[in-house]
Amino acid sequence: MALIVQKYGGTSVGSVERISAVADKVLATRAQGHDLVVVVSAMSGETDRLLKLAKSFADPPNSRELDVVLTTGEQVTIGLLGIALEARGCPARSYTGAQVRIVTDSAFTKARIVSIDDKPIRADLALGRVVVVAGFQGVDVEGNITTLGRGGSDTTAVALAAALKANECQIYTDVDGVYTTDPRIVPDARRLSRVCFEEMLEMASLGSKVLQIRSVEFASKYNVPLRVLSSFIEGPGTLIAPEDKTMEQALISGIAFNRDEAKLTLVGVPDRPGIAYQILADVADANVEVDMIIQNIGADGTTDFTFTVHRNDYKKALQLLQERASKLGVREVRGDNRIAKISVVGLGMRSHAGVASTMFKALANEGINIQMISTSEIKISVVVDEKYLELGVRALHAAFHLEEAGQK
Amino acid sequence: MALIVQKYGGTSVGSVERISAVADKVLATRAQGHDLVVVVSAMSGETDRLLKLAKSFADPPNSRELDVVLTTGEQVTIGLLGIALEARGCPARSYTGAQVRIVTDSAFTKARIVSIDDKPIRADLALGRVVVVAGFQGVDVEGNITTLGRGGSDTTAVALAAALKANECQIYTDVDGVYTTDPRIVPDARRLSRVCFEEMLEMASLGSKVLQIRSVEFASKYNVPLRVLSSFIEGPGTLIAPEDKTMEQALISGIAFNRDEAKLTLVGVPDRPGIAYQILADVADANVEVDMIIQNIGADGTTDFTFTVHRNDYKKALQLLQERASKLGVREVRGDNRIAKISVVGLGMRSHAGVASTMFKALANEGINIQMISTSEIKISVVVDEKYLELGVRALHAAFHLEEAGQK
Repeated sequence: MALIVQKYGGTSVGSVERISAVADKVLATRAQGHDLVVVVSAMSGETDRLLKLAKSFADPPNSRELDVVLTTGEQVTIGLLGIALEARGCPARSYTGAQVRIVTDSAFTKARIVSIDDKPIRADLALGRVVVVAGFQGVDVEGNITTLGRGGSDTTAVALAAALKANECQIYTDVDGVYTTDPRIVPDARRLSRVCFEEMLEMASLGSKVLQIRSVEFASKYNVPLRVLSSFIEGPGTLIAPEDKTMEQALISGIAFNRDEAKLTLVGVPDRPGIAYQILADVADANVEVDMIIQNIGADGTTDFTFTVHRNDYKKALQLLQERASKLGVREVRGDNRIAKISVVGLGMRSHAGVASTMFKALANEGINIQMISTSEIKISVVVDEKYLELGVRALHAAFHLEEAGQK
Repeated sequence: MALIVQKYGGTSVGSVERISAVADKVLATRAQGHDLVVVVSAMSGETDRLLKLAKSFADPPNSRELDVVLTTGEQVTIGLLGIALEARGCPARSYTGAQVRIVTDSAFTKARIVSIDDKPIRADLALGRVVVVAGFQGVDVEGNITTLGRGGSDTTAVALAAALKANECQIYTDVDGVYTTDPRIVPDARRLSRVCFEEMLEMASLGSKVLQIRSVEFASKYNVPLRVLSSFIEGPGTLIAPEDKTMEQALISGIAFNRDEAKLTLVGVPDRPGIAYQILADVADANVEVDMIIQNIGADGTTDFTFTVHRNDYKKALQLLQERASKLGVREVRGDNRIAKISVVGLGMRSHAGVASTMFKALANEGINIQMISTSEIKISVVVDEKYLELGVRALHAAFHLEEAGQK
């Protein structure tokens, strides 16, 4: 008998029929003799509806009051699932974030979990109840209602699993696991049966939308085995867990990509200490987040400085740099928002040489020019013209033979 | 400077525009220098929507979980009003029933208030904040979410006013006060500027839908002056307060009526002790509430026993009595669900004779036969054929000259 935390997202609880299907799934898990805590999101579309309603009064709305409004979405779902379970003869008890006492800081709309009181949940489980908890929400020490920000339900599930020392945290979504890359681009992309936290973190940060990066960080920190499963298709999904040292590591786990970036280049930057800081401080002050940064030292005492930002921030960043260009002594500001980032991710590359050369060769064979390169211990990213995105992903997927079932 | 509790019902907060109008009204009251606590209902239609959603899983739904679902309606409104107030530069803070700690018993869907912690509200008021509280809801000592039943928002407002010793509790509705009778039936019905608790209780229990009887009882018990006002039309409304001994009392305050009743008669009941108890115990066991009861002693050692029930319970009660008739030794069971009750209400009748004769004469003049009569210290009710309802109300309104502004 295990203790399992299951999390069902908005699509999985998007209608009366789907909530009923979740209730049936919960009963099936319980019939296997497991103790069960279920975390649910708001019914799909509900959070957007509430946000729009709130914004019709003020944009941005007061953040404390906004959280009071938004948290009702999950509260409706927990009550409905509680009713559905009780109607099936399954003792159940629902809890809002405030009731279960998921204590957070007071950063409304993006609060961080500080502590969870696991006693009431353990008491309910001991009485044979299924515990249903509202995702995405908590309460600060003064009793104010808070939310964890978008995707916060995953974080709630992982945090509960950590607090309860659950055997597994199962995240039910509309995909049946983590793939070597997006199957819409590479039809023979393969579902990974297992991936480690570090790889999943890189893949999430590189644009794989299966899990919120924050919940993966949380799971990694507290060593909670995560499993991504489909609410609609039966199957084992993908287990995200600590690195399995007993197995030989596949070279590469997957190809991630991201077309949400834009590139900015300052040409002819005076090559003096502190210049990079000066440029980026201005950008950071404007609340623009910077991803990749590259600086090449030139021959003439100047340097070219290139970085990428989210495509939504492109215009703002470009305008800012153009205004500051003369003050910074920069010759020219160039921008390009038609770029894409492609990354290969894999623990195996730590111990195997040649990943970079295989990658660059595969791209060169297709005539794809690399504009920027950035590397970490388990990832190599390149920026290319966005028109090469699909071609590049397919070429790399083939070059690393990811369609073949390896050890994963 | 006064402390005022205002309550806005579902229609008054039924749309973005109306919530904005409420925010403006709150600001106007505050500009007069008053401290303000605002109680709001769910947006009109929302509670019904949530109830329907819950019932699609089970009917009746688990009552604890149903309350979790239903309370989200008011929670959305408090957050939205909080946002609207903050956007107008008015410091505001919203509270759910659980947050403000309106502690109730654990009778889910119909809980009763046990205590209210006024400290957090007083602290907010001292900081110049408007306090917005969700009506209709509370929390039991174990932290479970509860609701007070339909119309519970009025009760919340009065209970808060009592706990805070507020100067006045203003109930904003879609009518601009309490009238001598329903203006749809008597066009020259007059708004009462003042009515006492006892009269209002009689009028509410006799079918005047302006206020929930429970909130009037509460106000009377704790001596909270209540004022009924319109959210849409400016005006002083009607003050419901303790009897004003300094003013000469009008004879009659109003004509109430009710077409929701049905009449049941047991003919030829053996006239022996305990028979009334035996009949009514059966009815009560079936959860049927009885209103008027009349028993006439006959000459032949039997008696006729007549009582009224809510029209919705008519069929159930009739069937029950027919089944028990022979056991009770009753000759015949008769029923009539085409009746109406008309009542004259007024403190003045305590000290003035002749109210009953004026009433009966006015009805006789119109050829209206009286089927049943029931009296209390400040009310006389008659049951007539429902086809005479409008005629009877108009005749009585004229007979007591209620169209003329009296002392009220």
